[in-house]
Amino acid sequence: MRYFDDFAAGDRFTGGPLEVTSAEIMAYAERFDPQPFHLDPEAARETLFKGLAASGWHTAGLTMRMIVGSTAGLAGGYIGMGVDSINWPRPTRPGDVLRIEMEVIEARRSVKRPDQGVLKVTTTTLNQKDEVVQVMTANLLAPARPA
Amino acid sequence: MRYFDDFAAGDRFTGGPLEVTSAEIMAYAERFDPQPFHLDPEAARETLFKGLAASGWHTAGLTMRMIVGSTAGLAGGYIGMGVDSINWPRPTRPGDVLRIEMEVIEARRSVKRPDQGVLKVTTTTLNQKDEVVQVMTANLLAPARPA
Repeated sequence: MRYFDDFAAGDRFTGGPLEVTSAEIMAYAERFDPQPFHLDPEAARETLFKGLAASGWHTAGLTMRMIVGSTAGLAGGYIGMGVDSINWPRPTRPGDVLRIEMEVIEARRSVKRPDQGVLKVTTTTLNQKDEVVQVMTANLLAPARPA
Repeated sequence: MRYFDDFAAGDRFTGGPLEVTSAEIMAYAERFDPQPFHLDPEAARETLFKGLAASGWHTAGLTMRMIVGSTAGLAGGYIGMGVDSINWPRPTRPGDVLRIEMEVIEARRSVKRPDQGVLKVTTTTLNQKDEVVQVMTANLLAPARPA
């Protein structure tokens, strides 16, 4: 378990792997992003994606899953204060095996509440070919080490 | 159906409603964000959230669902080029009925590819009490009207 005090800019952590199936891609799309390129392998061929592609929000959810199980070991869990940016250089595809690399960009103690701080963390999500499918920078609430 | 040419800064669209159940909140968390405040109503009471709360990524997914069904009617579908920011001022709760308000912030035609452009859109997600649960600004790919 690591507290706010235990993190510094430049710290790196990892998470995953997590495999993604076409059934899961289509099930996610059915509920959250019902568009042909996420729903139907045949229809997807005729689109920009040229084949079934996971919703970016699905990739974001899978990334969160890997953050929760990551080596960062943040005390109190992973509570997002907000996201600074997300980019999806290429989509997640059926059969991809994803992993994450996390890097602490900044650790800022709260002035109002010195018992907590905010960690700005960039999380890069890669597939089995080490191609980047998502880059996200987000701010996580981190409790300070109890006195 | 609206093409890039049909959008201008200041245009507004709406989407929803969409109801969220505690069963769905827990099912989402099981796969994507397995933390006590998203998984277990009892355990959630003892946390910062003081009760079961949807993952922010779940709110983001539900927002995408409402964007796809929104009055924007974007030709070619909703393809995110990236996200500029997401904030979650408060969590989505079991029984919430969500809706969205979208506003075009900027419409920028591609210099390299004049047959398409990018729409920067701020989407605000609100609950049945008109409380904001998410504010997101994202960039959507938009095809120009065919000649």
